[in-house]
Amino acid sequence: MTIPFSQISDDLAKQAIELPSWAFGNSGTRFKVFGTPGTPRTIEEKIADAATVHRHTGLAPTVALHIPWDKVDDYAALRDYAGEQGVSLGTVNSNTFQDDIYKFGSLTHSDPAVRQKAIDHHFACIDVMDQTGSRDLKIWLADGTNYPGQDDIRSRQDRLHESLQKIYDRLGDDQRMVLEYKFFEPAFYHTDVPDWGTSYAQVSALGDKALTCLDTGHHAPGTNIEFIVAQLLRLGKLGSFDFNSRFYADDDLIVGAADPFQLFRILVEVVRGGGYANPDVAFMLDQCHNVEDKIPGQIRSVLNVQEMTARALMLDREALNAAQAEHDVLGANGILMDAFYTDVRPALAEWRESRGLPADPMAAYAASGYQQKIAEERIGGTQSGWGA
Amino acid sequence: MTIPFSQISDDLAKQAIELPSWAFGNSGTRFKVFGTPGTPRTIEEKIADAATVHRHTGLAPTVALHIPWDKVDDYAALRDYAGEQGVSLGTVNSNTFQDDIYKFGSLTHSDPAVRQKAIDHHFACIDVMDQTGSRDLKIWLADGTNYPGQDDIRSRQDRLHESLQKIYDRLGDDQRMVLEYKFFEPAFYHTDVPDWGTSYAQVSALGDKALTCLDTGHHAPGTNIEFIVAQLLRLGKLGSFDFNSRFYADDDLIVGAADPFQLFRILVEVVRGGGYANPDVAFMLDQCHNVEDKIPGQIRSVLNVQEMTARALMLDREALNAAQAEHDVLGANGILMDAFYTDVRPALAEWRESRGLPADPMAAYAASGYQQKIAEERIGGTQSGWGA
Amino acid sequence: MTIPFSQISDDLAKQAIELPSWAFGNSGTRFKVFGTPGTPRTIEEKIADAATVHRHTGLAPTVALHIPWDKVDDYAALRDYAGEQGVSLGTVNSNTFQDDIYKFGSLTHSDPAVRQKAIDHHFACIDVMDQTGSRDLKIWLADGTNYPGQDDIRSRQDRLHESLQKIYDRLGDDQRMVLEYKFFEPAFYHTDVPDWGTSYAQVSALGDKALTCLDTGHHAPGTNIEFIVAQLLRLGKLGSFDFNSRFYADDDLIVGAADPFQLFRILVEVVRGGGYANPDVAFMLDQCHNVEDKIPGQIRSVLNVQEMTARALMLDREALNAAQAEHDVLGANGILMDAFYTDVRPALAEWRESRGLPADPMAAYAASGYQQKIAEERIGGTQSGWGA
Amino acid sequence: MTIPFSQISDDLAKQAIELPSWAFGNSGTRFKVFGTPGTPRTIEEKIADAATVHRHTGLAPTVALHIPWDKVDDYAALRDYAGEQGVSLGTVNSNTFQDDIYKFGSLTHSDPAVRQKAIDHHFACIDVMDQTGSRDLKIWLADGTNYPGQDDIRSRQDRLHESLQKIYDRLGDDQRMVLEYKFFEPAFYHTDVPDWGTSYAQVSALGDKALTCLDTGHHAPGTNIEFIVAQLLRLGKLGSFDFNSRFYADDDLIVGAADPFQLFRILVEVVRGGGYANPDVAFMLDQCHNVEDKIPGQIRSVLNVQEMTARALMLDREALNAAQAEHDVLGANGILMDAFYTDVRPALAEWRESRGLPADPMAAYAASGYQQKIAEERIGGTQSGWGA
Repeated sequence: MTIPFSQISDDLAKQAIELPSWAFGNSGTRFKVFGTPGTPRTIEEKIADAATVHRHTGLAPTVALHIPWDKVDDYAALRDYAGEQGVSLGTVNSNTFQDDIYKFGSLTHSDPAVRQKAIDHHFACIDVMDQTGSRDLKIWLADGTNYPGQDDIRSRQDRLHESLQKIYDRLGDDQRMVLEYKFFEPAFYHTDVPDWGTSYAQVSALGDKALTCLDTGHHAPGTNIEFIVAQLLRLGKLGSFDFNSRFYADDDLIVGAADPFQLFRILVEVVRGGGYANPDVAFMLDQCHNVEDKIPGQIRSVLNVQEMTARALMLDREALNAAQAEHDVLGANGILMDAFYTDVRPALAEWRESRGLPADPMAAYAASGYQQKIAEERIGGTQSGWGA
Repeated sequence: MTIPFSQISDDLAKQAIELPSWAFGNSGTRFKVFGTPGTPRTIEEKIADAATVHRHTGLAPTVALHIPWDKVDDYAALRDYAGEQGVSLGTVNSNTFQDDIYKFGSLTHSDPAVRQKAIDHHFACIDVMDQTGSRDLKIWLADGTNYPGQDDIRSRQDRLHESLQKIYDRLGDDQRMVLEYKFFEPAFYHTDVPDWGTSYAQVSALGDKALTCLDTGHHAPGTNIEFIVAQLLRLGKLGSFDFNSRFYADDDLIVGAADPFQLFRILVEVVRGGGYANPDVAFMLDQCHNVEDKIPGQIRSVLNVQEMTARALMLDREALNAAQAEHDVLGANGILMDAFYTDVRPALAEWRESRGLPADPMAAYAASGYQQKIAEERIGGTQSGWGA
Repeated sequence: MTIPFSQISDDLAKQAIELPSWAFGNSGTRFKVFGTPGTPRTIEEKIADAATVHRHTGLAPTVALHIPWDKVDDYAALRDYAGEQGVSLGTVNSNTFQDDIYKFGSLTHSDPAVRQKAIDHHFACIDVMDQTGSRDLKIWLADGTNYPGQDDIRSRQDRLHESLQKIYDRLGDDQRMVLEYKFFEPAFYHTDVPDWGTSYAQVSALGDKALTCLDTGHHAPGTNIEFIVAQLLRLGKLGSFDFNSRFYADDDLIVGAADPFQLFRILVEVVRGGGYANPDVAFMLDQCHNVEDKIPGQIRSVLNVQEMTARALMLDREALNAAQAEHDVLGANGILMDAFYTDVRPALAEWRESRGLPADPMAAYAASGYQQKIAEERIGGTQSGWGA
Repeated sequence: MTIPFSQISDDLAKQAIELPSWAFGNSGTRFKVFGTPGTPRTIEEKIADAATVHRHTGLAPTVALHIPWDKVDDYAALRDYAGEQGVSLGTVNSNTFQDDIYKFGSLTHSDPAVRQKAIDHHFACIDVMDQTGSRDLKIWLADGTNYPGQDDIRSRQDRLHESLQKIYDRLGDDQRMVLEYKFFEPAFYHTDVPDWGTSYAQVSALGDKALTCLDTGHHAPGTNIEFIVAQLLRLGKLGSFDFNSRFYADDDLIVGAADPFQLFRILVEVVRGGGYANPDVAFMLDQCHNVEDKIPGQIRSVLNVQEMTARALMLDREALNAAQAEHDVLGANGILMDAFYTDVRPALAEWRESRGLPADPMAAYAASGYQQKIAEERIGGTQSGWGA
């Protein structure tokens, strides 16, 4: 009992998922970062890879930048370069976790000079946004402490507000700030924006242009993430998603890899709450391909989101409402599961072909020779990673 | 490096911890409720037991009621009875989880008639408050679902708001509503008020008389509870505590039994945030004494809170601030730990004696013969429990 | 890339899943047990309901008994009755968690008299097995403590061994003991058989007829359950499964309801390790239908196991091996996911019809009128539950 | 109600805690490694720092080596150097997680050539042990997978056994192997030795010289670690501890920093089970001082273990046994808590002085000028870290 695929195919065409430039660079754990042949050395090469994902899937028209990892002298040129590749530049991500000065915090630091440096960094990010035409400034803070007593939790929260206010005031009329929350890591005792409640309280204190960013891997075990999605949509404060998946910590695995049913439930609430094909709710990936190939890893990821979105759109909401109204627990659950268990892959393959896309983007990429080409050509230089 | 006990002894005298009437009744798990000799059959006997805790500790001047478990015909008489015993009646707790009609929800139910019944129950609770002189109406909801799709999360949240608004509007000028949140149980897939963020969003939409109740056992594993304390105090929305402790789920064990250091950190943030000896932040217990004796279980609990409060008050905040300002991680942590590792028990024993209280309330209770007396006298009738 | 359904259809016919008699009785949480019309009053009615599940699915030829909940005077007669209904009696489950004497333990209790009573209860269970022809004695212990120091963990473990040894020695040649482990509940601080390692160490010390029972809901969050399945099969000690599912604690929800992909992975390891269609590895359900109808809840459960088993059998192991050998991370994962995402329901519907079963057991049950019939007929008496 | 300190002071003198050489090098998270002035560049400098910890505390007579991080040409010379500094060389830790060849496993790798390389590395470690006189070879494996299906869990376990067997067979008569387990990280989907059960099953299959290493930070949330301690001691398989502490993941914080009461309970079971002052049960630290100074971090750590050991030794076991025998839950718990809440620091200060040690090792170190000295002298070269 699901809506036919034919009825959702137009809706599917509205989907866009932003790729993170850093997913194409090397990443790893504190124990080891494994390099791989073909890893980009420059932001241009990252964009070329991202554009390759888009060419094969039609799903990823924009690329998020990370400053300073993707710093260039001429952002207008970068914008043009991206355009030539067939993609646009998207969200700008700030970074206040790699300078020695931020060892004890950035926007929350007790020293006004350090805070100002962090604020200035965000001003610089907004300057980049002005040049790239990016709408969103994404702030994820590594701020926190490792030991009880190390710093004053409360004052840090107040300082965070002050810092965010200054950054907020610098935003242009069409720009937004999205504040990501994260349960733990790299700080272990406390993080300054650990949960959606904190992000919500902080962005609510700023104004309409500040929203919450929900990273699907940043919650305590057992957390009902789709509830948070529903709640933030209800409160008008869900600005964006960072999709990925996790088994225990912030594993940053391919979205849908660990718990596909959870991804489905999240997308069901997105659709339910008006967050799908809604420009106010940005879909992004934030992943690390530590052991798998990066470009097909990204292709797999956007396909996973697309396949689950198709299932969510095919959910027979009318029938579900009726079963819910009758408190038919098994019936209502069954209607939901019907959509989840529907194999949308054959229909999606046709759908893609009808739009000039490869029916099987993974196979098409493998057959394209791109991976071999970059492995051969990208010799020398320094492979990109979190350090650069 | 701590503040001398002598400097905090006056502050200690300001502490009051409300006891839950139901802690004196039988409780258990879904597998078994063990009865014990002497368990109260009536609310009067519960109050007598609570008063016994207060007589031995000086810490527990009020008793929380649970409606309908503690329903009586004449609340004025009950109030008088409590007064004679030396205690007052405190928070009124509603119950919408034991009527068959609430199987699929109460304040969130899709059927307006069920919601109205639940709202009417809260009106009746407010009527009780008017008669008992209670200030706070505590709402903990068992509402939620067990299966994905069972009901619409978003609509339930909207209905919750509407229901709470009606109850809120009925509150007297000096009355408050505190909305408790709980991660899971008795619903397993989703609960309608699962986290502080949801409680905060809901009570903020109501007004100043609605606040959040933080039960220390109602969080996901790994949650930094003292952070939430600090945040809610900062936001002016921490209305009350339900103290207890847990190893994994909502175990409702004696406060401080599972993680005394966590209790200390919570109290440090309470003191830091102005929540101590502040009438706006109520201290309550919410515990189940499944295998241990109930009255000494409550005595042990209030003593645990008192001992940790003493340590929190003795924290040398000035030295801590200085170490924090210098980012002296080990020094700052050391100052916090100094307070925690200080054995306040001898000083507290003296302090109690100087106030006409037994130096060792546990021993005094054991020697009092009260337990034997109630075991002998309370024969026949039905022992109180969660059913009555 | 999966094995065609046609090639696995014979294997599918080998599946048998034991139903727990108690799933047909009422269950709930510590907060409330909701009754439902038609709930059995006797073990005979439970067996009739279980047989109904089997008639509709062909998957559930045996019913597990719980002693004393299912105690009867004449087990031979019960066996005959079951046979007439079309099912057999299966595993006998002991119960040492509801007598007052077991408040502080049963097989682990410090008092030899209490231990002997618990051992005697297991002897009585073996007597039942002799009469019912059951092979397996399943032991789940509620033993544990709520507070650190309450009892001596180490001595309890030694006493557990002694008690189990006595029970083991009483087993007939064709009888087995399966020892279940559980992370927490109803004890909160420690349980005496908390993990597979403890069960494994205990049963290994007994002999070949003692094995481990893995309940899928009895692990800490983040535990890789399929790893334990693989390990226990490797060690030759996986005796049986208790299937159910959970979001956070031991929710005892319908198997596959919370994390269908986990269920799939578990079944993949079962097949991989030779545990499928292997009489030495018993498949059982252990669930609570607190809010949903019980008979269709059980039907849904065995269908979920069947559907996932079909997917697991269709996994192209040869292709998987090849991809694994090449360390093709995405390829290997893709082959696994192919099997998971395959919609086996249409093929299974045909398969059922070809075997004289209803294509859609849920719909067939709903149309059968059985639920209405028992609701009308089972008036009076006491509905079965965990107390009886 | 505790045993007087005077009665345990001799026992306290038996304590020895091994320091990890790598704790003196830089460490961090995947996001950033912060360097600090004075960080050692060589193993000799690490040993000098470790010896400084020992000089101030009398608790840390040995230093664990990590190969290849601490590789030298002449281990006999290193042994002499350590001796001159006043310490000995201890456990040798292998490393199979930083060579590119180990990307998909080491001892579990499907390629026999990779496995042999990993085995050879362990042979080389045993060669080092022969020269350093070390008794224990500690094996912690980063082996695991990130995605379901990536590799065959079962075969990896079999290969692990074969590899371990070869290493085991190479051990000298007085040498041992300790196999550490870890719940997650750096692999996210499965680790090949995730729990004590797996380590126990693997070492049991080898023989008496193979034992389990318990790292206190390597468990799922909610795990009762002291239970595992008691169980492994009971089974005769607890070879060593890696002490540290954690709030959520493997934080590697200062032991006792996150949950001092848990550390106490662990040490109580160590004492109870005969693991204290028992050469067969090695006490080691395994920590990362990411934001705090390393040498005082190590001093703080060994002091924390010592203070908790003192409390555990002061536990009035006789009184506890009596209360346990009477099922006096509150009484038994109270006796345990009495020991925990006893402030042993003043007595320990005296005890230290009576043994020619500084009363306050933290203050003595701060006053010693050592930190300033190394900060000034250790200029140039490459600071040690996990890479070298």
